[in-house]
Amino acid sequence: MTEKPLILVTNDDGISAPGLRTLISVMNSIGEVVVVAPDSPQSGMGHAITLDSTLYAERVYMDDGPQIEYSCSGTPADCVKLAIRELLDRKPDLCVSGINHGSNSSINVIYSGTMSAAIEAGIEGIPAIGFSLLDYKWHAHFDASKKYVKTITKQVLKNSLPNGIVLNVNIPNISEEHVKGVKICRQAKANWVEEFDKRKTPQGKDYYWLSGKFVNLDDGKDTDEWALEQGYVSVVPIQFDLTAHQFIKNLNTWNLND
Amino acid sequence: MTEKPLILVTNDDGISAPGLRTLISVMNSIGEVVVVAPDSPQSGMGHAITLDSTLYAERVYMDDGPQIEYSCSGTPADCVKLAIRELLDRKPDLCVSGINHGSNSSINVIYSGTMSAAIEAGIEGIPAIGFSLLDYKWHAHFDASKKYVKTITKQVLKNSLPNGIVLNVNIPNISEEHVKGVKICRQAKANWVEEFDKRKTPQGKDYYWLSGKFVNLDDGKDTDEWALEQGYVSVVPIQFDLTAHQFIKNLNTWNLND
Repeated sequence: MTEKPLILVTNDDGISAPGLRTLISVMNSIGEVVVVAPDSPQSGMGHAITLDSTLYAERVYMDDGPQIEYSCSGTPADCVKLAIRELLDRKPDLCVSGINHGSNSSINVIYSGTMSAAIEAGIEGIPAIGFSLLDYKWHAHFDASKKYVKTITKQVLKNSLPNGIVLNVNIPNISEEHVKGVKICRQAKANWVEEFDKRKTPQGKDYYWLSGKFVNLDDGKDTDEWALEQGYVSVVPIQFDLTAHQFIKNLNTWNLND
Repeated sequence: MTEKPLILVTNDDGISAPGLRTLISVMNSIGEVVVVAPDSPQSGMGHAITLDSTLYAERVYMDDGPQIEYSCSGTPADCVKLAIRELLDRKPDLCVSGINHGSNSSINVIYSGTMSAAIEAGIEGIPAIGFSLLDYKWHAHFDASKKYVKTITKQVLKNSLPNGIVLNVNIPNISEEHVKGVKICRQAKANWVEEFDKRKTPQGKDYYWLSGKFVNLDDGKDTDEWALEQGYVSVVPIQFDLTAHQFIKNLNTWNLND
């Protein structure tokens, strides 16, 4: 096969995000690239899909690169669905999402629009990777990410991924020479402890801003949090069969039919 | 302990949904009930959270029941976070979400606001159950659900659930005498094949409606889809550690550090 692989690129920070632009530039060196990305930021959208309103997708020209680009009014999962069913001529060989501005390690994977796009592609049987850099800033330094994004992408194209598994890749926010390499990890048991900032509107009505502290409860040295703290790029294979198979036997001893 | 269990009730169809009202009536017979539910329908919201806008929660009085109720401007996951951190005096003993108008079996768990609320409670270490009836209609018949909702809830309060596991319960849309009982299942491998309905605005701009066909690719007799087709209530234990542990060994053989 000499045909270049067809790579679908998306994200959740929106089509103009520097992280997406970096990802496109790396993918242009590997394959034929089609971008279908949200027209505005969609962080924290989880696996939301648009059921009750209309979707728009418009061809756009963001730079001089060879990629084809569409800006879409929907969520990251909508972008992937629309790309596969309507906008692409053939099934892509790969879907990459990101590079997210901010971590999607540990429990963040649940809230992540970046990862929901990768998971949506996985559901469609397309090998998929979500990439995130541990820097929330719009003008984060994505240059050090390029090498790892390229290596991991090429390995996925070479080895493929089993059905039902996608990769969650997080990159530490340190300069390239300090990155120690890549570690395969499990998702750390960590969560957010929310602190709601309670305020009053000028009219005297209570409202809240969601904020919180991230708490890592897991001291395992095989977790993504540990790897990132040590200066490694973390790669967690994740699945969308959520069944807790190990608990089925126990549940069968409960009296649920009384 | 003679104190009644504190039960947090939420959903994704909104505070006035008949499915929620049914769930509240059953929970009132089991414990002390606090409802924190979205002020409008949130179906398909997945695990979305509100990061970039304000949240409101208002005490409301929907009927003559003993429960305390709040209507919240956020997503189902927001409702659970806000309930735990701001609105409740103590940590609830249980969180129940639903009864959803429509199935959350198999891959639907990924897109489900109902299940995201249960998962959010699970992340907080609270035993949690999501209930769904296989009937999308607003005036679905929830009466047959009551018996199973009550039994399963009481068993969860009695046996508790391990950390990291919540229950996804789906109820077939048949009359109570035809329900064969409860089956513990795994999530079926099924997905949606989207069909976008492409239209033009009065101004001539293309837009899309998302619709699709549900396709079950799994002929196992231990799946939720099978159980529901046979007339059973399906109970799938689900986890939010998404790590595909079984693939880590294989991934470690890849050349990701070249």
